[in-house]
Amino acid sequence: MELLKQYEAIRHKLKAYRYVMSVVGWDSQTEAPKGAFPRRADMLSVISQDVFQLATSKEYQDAVYGLYEQREELDPLMKREIERVKKGLDKQVKIPQEDYVAYNKLINLSQRVWEDAKESDDWNKFQGNLKQLVDYNRKFIRYYDLDMEDYNVLLDDFEEGMTMELYDHFFDTLRAELVPFVRKVLSEGKPLNKDITTRLFDAKKQQEFCEYLIDVFAYDRNHGLMKESVHPFTWNTHPTDVRFTTRYLEGYVFSSIFAAIHELGHATYEQQVDEKWNDTGLNGGASMGIHESQSRFYENVIGRSKAFWETHYPKFQQLFPDETADISMEDFYRNANKVEASFIRVEADELTYPMHIMIRYDIERMLFSNEIEVEDLPDVWNTKMKEYLGIEPRNHAEGVLQDVHWSAGLFGYFPTYALGSAYAAQFLHTMKQDLDLDDLVQRGDIKAINSWLKDKIHQFGRSKTPLELLQDVTGEPFNPMYYVQYLKDKYTELYL
Amino acid sequence: MELLKQYEAIRHKLKAYRYVMSVVGWDSQTEAPKGAFPRRADMLSVISQDVFQLATSKEYQDAVYGLYEQREELDPLMKREIERVKKGLDKQVKIPQEDYVAYNKLINLSQRVWEDAKESDDWNKFQGNLKQLVDYNRKFIRYYDLDMEDYNVLLDDFEEGMTMELYDHFFDTLRAELVPFVRKVLSEGKPLNKDITTRLFDAKKQQEFCEYLIDVFAYDRNHGLMKESVHPFTWNTHPTDVRFTTRYLEGYVFSSIFAAIHELGHATYEQQVDEKWNDTGLNGGASMGIHESQSRFYENVIGRSKAFWETHYPKFQQLFPDETADISMEDFYRNANKVEASFIRVEADELTYPMHIMIRYDIERMLFSNEIEVEDLPDVWNTKMKEYLGIEPRNHAEGVLQDVHWSAGLFGYFPTYALGSAYAAQFLHTMKQDLDLDDLVQRGDIKAINSWLKDKIHQFGRSKTPLELLQDVTGEPFNPMYYVQYLKDKYTELYL
Repeated sequence: MELLKQYEAIRHKLKAYRYVMSVVGWDSQTEAPKGAFPRRADMLSVISQDVFQLATSKEYQDAVYGLYEQREELDPLMKREIERVKKGLDKQVKIPQEDYVAYNKLINLSQRVWEDAKESDDWNKFQGNLKQLVDYNRKFIRYYDLDMEDYNVLLDDFEEGMTMELYDHFFDTLRAELVPFVRKVLSEGKPLNKDITTRLFDAKKQQEFCEYLIDVFAYDRNHGLMKESVHPFTWNTHPTDVRFTTRYLEGYVFSSIFAAIHELGHATYEQQVDEKWNDTGLNGGASMGIHESQSRFYENVIGRSKAFWETHYPKFQQLFPDETADISMEDFYRNANKVEASFIRVEADELTYPMHIMIRYDIERMLFSNEIEVEDLPDVWNTKMKEYLGIEPRNHAEGVLQDVHWSAGLFGYFPTYALGSAYAAQFLHTMKQDLDLDDLVQRGDIKAINSWLKDKIHQFGRSKTPLELLQDVTGEPFNPMYYVQYLKDKYTELYL
Repeated sequence: MELLKQYEAIRHKLKAYRYVMSVVGWDSQTEAPKGAFPRRADMLSVISQDVFQLATSKEYQDAVYGLYEQREELDPLMKREIERVKKGLDKQVKIPQEDYVAYNKLINLSQRVWEDAKESDDWNKFQGNLKQLVDYNRKFIRYYDLDMEDYNVLLDDFEEGMTMELYDHFFDTLRAELVPFVRKVLSEGKPLNKDITTRLFDAKKQQEFCEYLIDVFAYDRNHGLMKESVHPFTWNTHPTDVRFTTRYLEGYVFSSIFAAIHELGHATYEQQVDEKWNDTGLNGGASMGIHESQSRFYENVIGRSKAFWETHYPKFQQLFPDETADISMEDFYRNANKVEASFIRVEADELTYPMHIMIRYDIERMLFSNEIEVEDLPDVWNTKMKEYLGIEPRNHAEGVLQDVHWSAGLFGYFPTYALGSAYAAQFLHTMKQDLDLDDLVQRGDIKAINSWLKDKIHQFGRSKTPLELLQDVTGEPFNPMYYVQYLKDKYTELYL
């Protein structure tokens, strides 16, 4: 009981420190003046040092490891929490201080190096840093001394319970089923009647439409807000404060709409986590993959459905009468689901998106199984791109250098993006047994859908692992065929 | 040297903690969702406890009191800093912990009690709390054990060096010179040709005009930003991050304009403090009074001058052609300087404003000299109002209950508001010997004025006391006659 008290006191303190740092982060990403950067970095470094010291302090280690020893006597949820915390703590304390410091310096440096390399389209500028980043990760995995293959350690970091075995099955399925289907849609698909993706739409009116969408999705404004930022994101500290951003591109109206709906999916999840987890370590969304399943469900399953636009296109037309005078609801719906073989992951459509992830998974998997080396990345990238989407990047900026993740030391992260959509399709299959989804969407009753999501998924926070949650909700283990079927049905109807 | 290092390390840490709390404060006052309040309070209480512990820790006390002992050997600026810090620390450590906690609880409670009393116009609801607040302050003053009269301790807290003797002279001068002058303007003044203070002006266009004003005043956008809040304020952590707010009332266009210009005065001051004070305890503005002198100088001396509107009224007319079709520049200028006997301090005009402060000063002075008791306040208030402005409040909400300050335990604060305008007039008199102010304002060259202010006042941060600064800039001690003369000249020309 003493140990538990000690643990809970430090946990509360860590939450408070992370909370204030997080508010500073929100500020810096949404409005802080540019010139304030150096001072902020100086001030934040004081706080983050304090957090690091506390999170690796003897007191905290004593509490966590002590409780871990006695975990069988703990309440099952506290047991689960302690196991997770212990796993994270192991990773922090097993890395020698000097490696930890050197690695963090390298990461800071590498992001600037990557930016520069991308800007000047010069792979060689980045190759050395990336090699070091990969080597540090390989080294750290050995420090952890886990009985797992290297890449599995990384995969599990971002999605608890996921392994190469599970992901291989997932991506093998997509490779076999989707690659030929995408080819067919691209070559034989019925073209758009009119392409409005490049028409100009006033930013202020886009904002007005996004404000409208907030209410359509029944988002709780008393516990959140929408703002603008260069890269849309969701920010939360607690179910009572969940904010998100979108961005307004006058030349691409779908950007603000689908970024807003996507982030609303994340935000609604966080708002609906049961408050009973607040002060525990089981608060927040279950995992990155489950989180992404909720945002993709909102964005693609609801937001890009015909039922949705049957109801909300009139409002859009009302705001943009001139721009949409020659565009029927059907045209608009097909534009929102435009399929294209393209180079940039973040701009990819729903159907081709998983191809982009497959490339990254294949590369990371080979890299951490020592089948390829960093030098091989550009060639492998371009070859895979050709294989999956039939196109070849004209330069590295639109190829292997496009994403920030690797420069930040994030390996094992990408696959969760594809996983999210696959989880979403599996959840959808179950949901349809309980709800007439199309009818609810058409009637504008997203509240009923939110209730289902809260009841089945959101409320549980992190008290279940992602794969447990999936099993509990859908009654079966992860099955990528729901995703394949969902995509084939939708895009056959749209294009073939 | 060891002590100095110890002091500087804790100082840096305290700055970082206050910085993050301050960002959370900015967030909560400008955008945080309402429902986030309880969680924020919980998280902030952890940080503020840490700040309190550190700021009263044995380590910090050893450093500060140790350095104070050896202050004659310190560099003169460090000596000054340590003297100020020691004075503040004395006050914190001399109050017994239980009194400190009880007082803070009382303050939290009293603000809600005051709000309720004001809303229901019921003085009796608030009287008990106010009595306790006054008693605690009287008690604390005795703990400090200073060789000063009670009210002087409070006055010095808010404006270093100011005493009843100096304030009495100030307010006696105003009473003798201004009260009859105000009466004359109110009874004999030439009325406005047209009153536009109640016309409707679109909020978005008001915002556009305020954005224009930001550039007129040459505010540094790379180190600041403007936002909206219910109560306009300036927020700063450092010269590289100085923000401010205004508010848009469609039924009173002068609110956004003069709040923006007022806050720009505060913000420009903070932006122009020399960076060399950043990491010391002498950063930021010199005092509340000096700060207010800069905001009032911007707002009243520049912003409400004829020269200013000769140049900028065309821009205003361009934004509001219909609303201003029948309004000449002269009409607009006189509207911006409309004089009225009114009840509410924060809505008072430049000329009658000091009368409102006199009432509060008289009351506080008598209260802390034990000449009156809290029970007497409503009567004294109404009598003074009648005496200074010739009007009597119809209820306590527009009388003795109108301000939040006393409910927050702030006694001795009000006089600095009037002091600011008087300092400004004295600075103005000196500035006019160096610059042709009207000409610069008319030519839109506020930069030259900012340079003068930086050179003479802003750069020094808190390295001088307010009265030293005034003496250094103007070559003489505080002299309220500059203020009286400034007001008489301006309002004689406008009204008589």
